[in-house]
Amino acid sequence: MTLPRCAQEAPAGFSAAEAVAYQPIGTLRSPHAVVQGMPIQPTGARGILGHIEVAPEYAAGLKDLEGFSHVIVLYHLHQIRGYELSVRPFLDTANHGIFATRSPKRPNAIGLSVLELAGVELSDAGGVVRLRNVDILDGTPVLDIKPYVPAFDSWQAERIGWFADKTDAAETCKADERFR
Amino acid sequence: MTLPRCAQEAPAGFSAAEAVAYQPIGTLRSPHAVVQGMPIQPTGARGILGHIEVAPEYAAGLKDLEGFSHVIVLYHLHQIRGYELSVRPFLDTANHGIFATRSPKRPNAIGLSVLELAGVELSDAGGVVRLRNVDILDGTPVLDIKPYVPAFDSWQAERIGWFADKTDAAETCKADERFR
Repeated sequence: MTLPRCAQEAPAGFSAAEAVAYQPIGTLRSPHAVVQGMPIQPTGARGILGHIEVAPEYAAGLKDLEGFSHVIVLYHLHQIRGYELSVRPFLDTANHGIFATRSPKRPNAIGLSVLELAGVELSDAGGVVRLRNVDILDGTPVLDIKPYVPAFDSWQAERIGWFADKTDAAETCKADERFR
Repeated sequence: MTLPRCAQEAPAGFSAAEAVAYQPIGTLRSPHAVVQGMPIQPTGARGILGHIEVAPEYAAGLKDLEGFSHVIVLYHLHQIRGYELSVRPFLDTANHGIFATRSPKRPNAIGLSVLELAGVELSDAGGVVRLRNVDILDGTPVLDIKPYVPAFDSWQAERIGWFADKTDAAETCKADERFR
């Protein structure tokens, strides 16, 4: 018996997908105890030190990470509750769709920061990944660490939408409580 | 009554964190029906078109995204089962800690690709985000879309560890089944 042709094609429109569950691999430690006044991007956090405490059961996965000058850290924005599809981001006075912003109040509150790697330490108690330019709240659950590789991650972007004349402000603009 | 000082301090070592659950915002469509033979990075997928079918309930979040030339797509590597802390990645003959690689068989199987944005379409049936250089399997659940902003995301990495003489190979190297 041959399946009708349409049964082999992708369904039209969105196909319902099941929820995805992740287990944090560690916890980020930083001087940022509260959201209010935090840097909003690593460019506004130059020199600020922090570290990831990696759980003992994952520490072996850090082998050879010390060879990289930068890492991508993915984390769960654990103090965010709910989301908004239209937000007024820290750097603008106008609203934008959430996926056109880096605002934390996203449907899936995953944070991404490219940070300078300052060192990796391994012990029986787990691993410690030391970082510089940390713009992440103390106590944040860390989901993944990836090596930053410019050939894959650095692109000449011709257009950066509403950010065009606003990225410099990220060096001084601090977070307020609007996304709590 | 005053809490003892230690109750306000961060606990020493790793603090157990609860699992985090995310609901995919859409599904990625691409010509890559099977893992075998897929490009392993966007640099090996130049010109390959794909799109994200964004669920109707999230489509309003795409407003103003069309102003960007590149986006960061975060997705769940849904065909990966389990993880390994030491892996031999596609680009090397030696093993490395999983967090020093971009291999998919990670403790939390989150994929990250910086892709060229080819267009955004909105309708009652949801949103469509058209992409170029797609290195992602057809049917992949998409977790987040972020605008790519070089001031935040592009860094001069002085050291790229074991990738040092291997990134060019990502343009031709294809995936095999080792991480299934």
